[in-house]
Amino acid sequence: MEYSLATLAERVNGRVIGDGSIRISGLNGAQIAHEGELTFAEDERHFGLAMASRASAILVSEQIKELGGRSGIAVKNPKLVFAQLLELFYPQPLAAAGVHPTAVLGKSVALGPEVSIGPHAVLGDGVRIGQGTRIESGAHVGQGTTIGEYCFIGPNVSIYYGTHIGHRVRIHAGSVIGGDGFGYVLHEGRHVKVPQVGNVIIEDDVELGSNVCVDRATIGSTIIRQGTKIDNLVQIAHNDHIGQHVVMAGQVGLAGSVTVGDYVVMGGQAGAVDHVTIGARAQVGAASPVIKSVAPGETVWGFPARPVKEAKEQIALVGRLPVWVERLKQLLGRVDALEKRVEQLPGPKSSS
Amino acid sequence: MEYSLATLAERVNGRVIGDGSIRISGLNGAQIAHEGELTFAEDERHFGLAMASRASAILVSEQIKELGGRSGIAVKNPKLVFAQLLELFYPQPLAAAGVHPTAVLGKSVALGPEVSIGPHAVLGDGVRIGQGTRIESGAHVGQGTTIGEYCFIGPNVSIYYGTHIGHRVRIHAGSVIGGDGFGYVLHEGRHVKVPQVGNVIIEDDVELGSNVCVDRATIGSTIIRQGTKIDNLVQIAHNDHIGQHVVMAGQVGLAGSVTVGDYVVMGGQAGAVDHVTIGARAQVGAASPVIKSVAPGETVWGFPARPVKEAKEQIALVGRLPVWVERLKQLLGRVDALEKRVEQLPGPKSSS
Amino acid sequence: MEYSLATLAERVNGRVIGDGSIRISGLNGAQIAHEGELTFAEDERHFGLAMASRASAILVSEQIKELGGRSGIAVKNPKLVFAQLLELFYPQPLAAAGVHPTAVLGKSVALGPEVSIGPHAVLGDGVRIGQGTRIESGAHVGQGTTIGEYCFIGPNVSIYYGTHIGHRVRIHAGSVIGGDGFGYVLHEGRHVKVPQVGNVIIEDDVELGSNVCVDRATIGSTIIRQGTKIDNLVQIAHNDHIGQHVVMAGQVGLAGSVTVGDYVVMGGQAGAVDHVTIGARAQVGAASPVIKSVAPGETVWGFPARPVKEAKEQIALVGRLPVWVERLKQLLGRVDALEKRVEQLPGPKSSS
Repeated sequence: MEYSLATLAERVNGRVIGDGSIRISGLNGAQIAHEGELTFAEDERHFGLAMASRASAILVSEQIKELGGRSGIAVKNPKLVFAQLLELFYPQPLAAAGVHPTAVLGKSVALGPEVSIGPHAVLGDGVRIGQGTRIESGAHVGQGTTIGEYCFIGPNVSIYYGTHIGHRVRIHAGSVIGGDGFGYVLHEGRHVKVPQVGNVIIEDDVELGSNVCVDRATIGSTIIRQGTKIDNLVQIAHNDHIGQHVVMAGQVGLAGSVTVGDYVVMGGQAGAVDHVTIGARAQVGAASPVIKSVAPGETVWGFPARPVKEAKEQIALVGRLPVWVERLKQLLGRVDALEKRVEQLPGPKSSS
Repeated sequence: MEYSLATLAERVNGRVIGDGSIRISGLNGAQIAHEGELTFAEDERHFGLAMASRASAILVSEQIKELGGRSGIAVKNPKLVFAQLLELFYPQPLAAAGVHPTAVLGKSVALGPEVSIGPHAVLGDGVRIGQGTRIESGAHVGQGTTIGEYCFIGPNVSIYYGTHIGHRVRIHAGSVIGGDGFGYVLHEGRHVKVPQVGNVIIEDDVELGSNVCVDRATIGSTIIRQGTKIDNLVQIAHNDHIGQHVVMAGQVGLAGSVTVGDYVVMGGQAGAVDHVTIGARAQVGAASPVIKSVAPGETVWGFPARPVKEAKEQIALVGRLPVWVERLKQLLGRVDALEKRVEQLPGPKSSS
Repeated sequence: MEYSLATLAERVNGRVIGDGSIRISGLNGAQIAHEGELTFAEDERHFGLAMASRASAILVSEQIKELGGRSGIAVKNPKLVFAQLLELFYPQPLAAAGVHPTAVLGKSVALGPEVSIGPHAVLGDGVRIGQGTRIESGAHVGQGTTIGEYCFIGPNVSIYYGTHIGHRVRIHAGSVIGGDGFGYVLHEGRHVKVPQVGNVIIEDDVELGSNVCVDRATIGSTIIRQGTKIDNLVQIAHNDHIGQHVVMAGQVGLAGSVTVGDYVVMGGQAGAVDHVTIGARAQVGAASPVIKSVAPGETVWGFPARPVKEAKEQIALVGRLPVWVERLKQLLGRVDALEKRVEQLPGPKSSS
C-alpha cells in the first residue's frame, strides 16, 4: 500500500505542507522512521524528534504553518489521525465468516449474519451472537450468554453462563468473564461457599486485555459500562460497578462491591479494597492501594493511596529526616550546654 | 421456583416471624430487593437496611423475636442460611454426564460414574477422574493426574502431568496447575534451567479462582491443604506449602518455599518473598509485601508488611511531620536567642 | 533408574568421596531426603543440613576433601550439577512427534521434522514451526507466526499473528503473546483505539511462565532478548524492550515503552511506569514500583523504588520517629524552663 501525501491529506481532512506528491508507504515513530514513512508530532517534544527524523513527512497540529522545508500534513488532532492512518496502512488479518466445522454449538444457538466462529470454539445452549462478531479458536461461551454485533472474542477466552455483552466489545485471549465471585461464610471452622448466582454485564465499546478476570455477582450483576478500557491481568470482583470511559492499566485489582465513576483512570498495579467508591474523573496512581473512598476529580497516589500532593510532600519530608534528626541532636547538645551555663549563674535557681 | 415462608423456614430449621403464607420467589440484597423476595440481615447495620427494604421477608438472627409487623425467618446463622437458600433458588446449569465426542482421552484413562467431560477437553494417559466430577471444555489434564470426586474443572484450565487433586475441588477457567517452578542456576553468564521434577497436591474442598497459577515443586510437592480458598490471578510458587482453610484474595503472590499456616488470611495483592513462614491465623493486609516471617495470629500491613498497629502509628507520625519540623525550626530560633542572651550575662563564659 | 555413585561422578566429571559403589535411586532436598538418595550442599548453611540428612550421598563443592565418613561427589558447581542430574533421574514425559488428528492447520503451514502438535491445537495460515518443537493441546498460533527449533508451547497458550519466536523457547500454559497494546486517544469524550500494528519478537532460550501477557507493539516490535526468564502472571506491554538474561519474578508489571537492560533482576510484583529505563545489571526489589529510570548496576527497593540503602535508612528512621518526637517534646519543655529562668536573671533583657 502506498499513497501520495496529498491523497492522505484529503482522506483525513488535513492541509498539505510542502510537497503533496511525496509517496508514503508506511507510518512509524520518529526515532525509527525511515524514508518513505510518515511520522507524527503530538506535542512540542515530539515535534523536535519528528523534525530530526528520517521520515519523509510529518503529521502535525493545524497551528503549524510550515516545516522548514520539510513536508507534512496539518490536522486538528495529529494523534487521532495517526490512529486512523494506522488502520488504513495496516489492516488486521480477518477470519473468514462462517462456523468452523470443529466448533461445537449447543441447542438453540442464534448466530447473526457474517459471524465467524473459530476452530474448537464451544457455544452453550441458547447463546446468541450478533452480526459480524468473531469468536476465536478455543473460546468457551457458556449457556444463555448474549454477545452483540462486531465483537471480538479472542482465543481461549472463557465466558461463563448468563453473561451479557454489548456491541463492538473486544476481549483478548485468556480472559475469563463470569467466574464465581469470592464469597464464603466461616462456619464451624470451614469456609462454606456462598453460591454466586448473579452475572456479568459488559456494555458497548468496552475493551478487555488478555488474561483479565471479571467475576459474576453474588446476586445482581457485575457491570462494566460503555467505552471503558481495561488492560491485561486486571481483576474485577463480584458486584463491582465500573462506570463509562474508565481506563485501568495492567494488573489493577479491585475487591468486591467497588464503585468506579465515569472517566476514572487507574495506573498499573493499583488496587482498591471492598465497598469503596472512586469518584468520577478521579485518578489513582500506579501501584497505589485505595483503602478509603476517593472524591470525584481527586488524584491519589502512594501506599496507601492519598492525595498526591500530600503523598509527595511526605516522601520529601521523610527523605530529609536525616537532616532534621541531625539538627535535633545538635540542639540537644546546645540546650545541655545552656542549662549547665545557666545553672552556674547567680540568681534564683531552677525549681526542677 | 416459589416457596411459602413457612416451607423455607422448615427447610432451614428456622422460626417463622409474622405471616408464614407469604410467597417467596427469589433472594436479594436489601438495597435492591423488591416484593416477593427474601433479604437477610447479618448484623445491626444490615438489619436497618433490611427493615427499610422492599423485600417481602427478612432472614434474621434467632435473637430477633419480632419485626415490627414485617415477616421473616429467624435462624442461628443468617448468612450461612442465605448461602444455602441461594443454592435452592438458583441451581447452576449442570453439564450432562458423559464424555463429549470431541474430547480426547489417552490410554488407560479411568472415569468414575456420572463424570462429565466437555467438548475438546484433553485427558492424558493414565488420568483418573472420580465420580461426579465435571471437566469443562478445552481443559487439559496431563498424564498421570488424579482428580477426586465431585470436582469442577473450568473451561481452558491446564493441569500438568502428575498432579493430585482431592474431592470437591473447584478450579475456575484459565488456571494453570503444575507449570514449572521458576528455578535457574547462573553459569557462565546464562541462566541454566533447574528441572522441576516435583508435582502439585491439592487437597479436598479447595477452591481456586480464574487464571490462578500453582507451580509444581522443584523436588517434592507444592501443597494446598484442605478447605483453602484462593481468588483470581494468585501466584503460588514451587514448594510452597499452604495450610488448611487459608483465604487468599485476588492477585496475591508468593515466591518459592513459603509456608502459610492454617486459617491465614491474605488481602488482595499481598505478597511474600521466598522461604518465609506466615504463622497460623495470621492476617496480611491488602497490597502488603511480607519480607520476613509473620508470627501466628499476628496482623501485618504496610510496605513492607509489619504489625498493623505499628504501621498505622508510623503513617500517622509521618502525616504530622510538617508540624514537628515547624516546631523544631521555632525551637532553633528560641535556642539561638537564648544563647545570645546568656552570652551577654555576667559570670563564667561557656567553655565552647 | 538407579546408578552407582562412581557412575554418576564420572558422568558429571566429579570426584568420588567415600564409597563409590553406593546405589543412588533419586535426588532430594536435605530435609526430606531418605536412604538411597543424593542431596546437595550449595553453600555452608546447606552443607550442615546435608550432613545431618538421611541421604546416602552428598553433592559438594570441589574444595571439600572428605565428609566425615559419609560418601559424596565433589564438583565445581554443585547446584549446576544437581540440575543436570535432575534431568537424568526424572525425564519429563514427552509427547510423541506428529500432528494430532484433531489439530487444525491453516494453509501453507510448514512443520520441521519431529514436531509434535497436540490435540485441538490451531495453527493459522503460513505458520512455520522448527524441528523438534512441541505445541500442546488447545494452543492457538496466529497466522504468519514463526516458532524455532526445540520450543515448548504449553496447553492453551495463545500466540497472535505475526509473532517471531526463536529456538529453545518455552512458554507455559495460558500465556498470551501478541495481544493488543493498550493505546487510546481521548477524543470527544471517548477513548478511540490506536490500532496496534506491530508485533512481538522473542529470542532464543527465553522461558515464559504461565498466564504471562506480552503485548504486541503499536508500531515496530516488543522484544524479549535471548536467555531472559520470566515468571508467571507477568505483564510486558507494547514496545517494551527486555534485554538478555533478564530475570523477572512472578506478577512483575511493566507499562509501555520500558527498556530493561541485560542481566536485570526484578523481584515479584515489582513494576515500572512507561518510558523508563532500567540499566543493565540493576536489581529491583520485590513489590517496588519504579517511577524513574534506574542506573546500571543500581539496587532499588521501596515505595516508590529508590536506592535500597536510602530506602532502608528511611524506614529505620521512620521506625524511630516516636523516639525523636518524644525527645523534641522534652526539649520544648527544657527550653521553656530555660527561657523562664533567663528572664528572671539580672542584666539586659531579650529584645523579642
